[in-house]
Amino acid sequence: MYVLGIDGGGTKTTGIVADENGKVYIESHAGPSNPNTLTPDEFEEVLKGLTADLEKQDSVIFSQLAVCFAGMSGAGDSWRCDAKFEQVLTKFLPPQIEVIVRNDAYNVLYSETLGKPGIVQIAGTGSISFGLNHENKTVRSGGWGYLFDEAGSAYHLGNEALRAVFKNYDGRGPETVLTEEIINYFNVSDVTDLLGKIHGPEHPRSVIAQLAPLIIAAAENGDGVAAKIIRKACAEIMECIESCHKKLFAADHPTLVVLSGGVFANSQQLLDCLRELSKKTLPNIVLRQAHAAPVSGAVIGGLKAMGFNSIDENITERINLQLKKS
Amino acid sequence: MYVLGIDGGGTKTTGIVADENGKVYIESHAGPSNPNTLTPDEFEEVLKGLTADLEKQDSVIFSQLAVCFAGMSGAGDSWRCDAKFEQVLTKFLPPQIEVIVRNDAYNVLYSETLGKPGIVQIAGTGSISFGLNHENKTVRSGGWGYLFDEAGSAYHLGNEALRAVFKNYDGRGPETVLTEEIINYFNVSDVTDLLGKIHGPEHPRSVIAQLAPLIIAAAENGDGVAAKIIRKACAEIMECIESCHKKLFAADHPTLVVLSGGVFANSQQLLDCLRELSKKTLPNIVLRQAHAAPVSGAVIGGLKAMGFNSIDENITERINLQLKKS
Repeated sequence: MYVLGIDGGGTKTTGIVADENGKVYIESHAGPSNPNTLTPDEFEEVLKGLTADLEKQDSVIFSQLAVCFAGMSGAGDSWRCDAKFEQVLTKFLPPQIEVIVRNDAYNVLYSETLGKPGIVQIAGTGSISFGLNHENKTVRSGGWGYLFDEAGSAYHLGNEALRAVFKNYDGRGPETVLTEEIINYFNVSDVTDLLGKIHGPEHPRSVIAQLAPLIIAAAENGDGVAAKIIRKACAEIMECIESCHKKLFAADHPTLVVLSGGVFANSQQLLDCLRELSKKTLPNIVLRQAHAAPVSGAVIGGLKAMGFNSIDENITERINLQLKKS
Repeated sequence: MYVLGIDGGGTKTTGIVADENGKVYIESHAGPSNPNTLTPDEFEEVLKGLTADLEKQDSVIFSQLAVCFAGMSGAGDSWRCDAKFEQVLTKFLPPQIEVIVRNDAYNVLYSETLGKPGIVQIAGTGSISFGLNHENKTVRSGGWGYLFDEAGSAYHLGNEALRAVFKNYDGRGPETVLTEEIINYFNVSDVTDLLGKIHGPEHPRSVIAQLAPLIIAAAENGDGVAAKIIRKACAEIMECIESCHKKLFAADHPTLVVLSGGVFANSQQLLDCLRELSKKTLPNIVLRQAHAAPVSGAVIGGLKAMGFNSIDENITERINLQLKKS
């Protein structure tokens, strides 16, 4: 029984062929496959390249694929789109293979729940909550765009930090080590010089998001302004989790909430703050940082579609160990 | 005694020649003259056109100009730049005329203070505070860019409203009439359709700023969410005014604060809210909406430079009455 799991993202796409025990037979990588940032031709080209490479590596196993589960960033917003992606994939895969396209949040969720329901909270450059319940109902909360939503994201943390730095510069806000940290980070001599760095050739969103680790570190070193930014972000993240939970589960349901994305990496304070907040409103949720490769969640999605309902709890560890370090 | 007053903005430039009594002799209009959005050649072309038109209308009066005061948006951030603008203007004006270039906030300030010190709070698409004291010291506060500053601006109000609409859509925030108002404004059927309208061909900043009147109206009609947005904006505006005041005046100095820009137009609630807040921290300030044409402030700037220290209090009304309706 061979399953093709695909994890498609804004920077790269990974495809692996594995069996129900988590043995990996073929692995391939391609460029970004978020359809929102590609033309239809470019999107097709990426999937064509990925599948051709997999077939080239082992055409016998490739020809025996039973199911393909692709968790793709940019998918899942409408059935019409997902059907289109499924059509594209079907063109490049063996006949009669079952092709399933879902949003990439499924990969992260399944990599930790082993195919069971739960909630994923992503906080990378952007942020969004996604949940799935026992009736296969899904909901999202947040992630409506960096300008007015996505609190808790790296962009949001960076933006709040810049706001605090300029407020202090004007005498409108308290002192913070963020001023020195951000001036040093951009290697400029004055706060006003920051404007030129932020509105440079790169999109401000990416430039500002890169500041998030400075705010996390400043908060952990006791800076009051940074700590307040972190607490506010946690409150917004918790609101997203709560609204997903409310629509999917009973209030006391012991739900696993998978935390994924750079903001959660190395931030014990952020994790502690979320745990503290959850005690009040969702005491039975379990917060856990994602640690398995998202593509292992895609394999689990494929296995689930084939009827494997009891999936070996060590499958993601086994897949992780076999993946090439890329 | 003839004075040339120029008001240069991001959308148009106005120049008038007046005397110390506020009699207007020549008036001309040209395109935008914000040097940040023009090439040096384009900038020079606008000022050349404006001055040539003034001279053409009355070369005798033009040749007798004693002083030119130009309040230009984009000026005032560095002496080096202002000197450059002065050089450009000097090329197109009669010899020995005194040329003074300042930020356009001076025009608004002087049009209400008649050349005396005070603070200007601008809240249009963007927002900024600007103050001038008796030692000719100037300070600014806010206005560091729409992404992370400029609270109280039309953009900021619109952005907060969208945030509230999406929060309510997700079940993260309270109901608000803003949802219906904004959906109707953009003529779409669903909240999620708003994203396409905001990230269309126009810059999101202008699209979002256009929502400000809806928020002001919703707040005045009793919408709690809109009222909270207005109160928060007022608090941020007051922080800007306070930080300017602190650097320029004694705490109990009876300072005139001139309010200018579309956000203040037709918003009695916003004005009341600011008055309420000022009672606690700056009880002696007087808040007044700008009503005179900014170019009249430029004339006053010119008269002040010529040594007129006691300027007729009806000068701006007289100038206003003589200006062409454009």
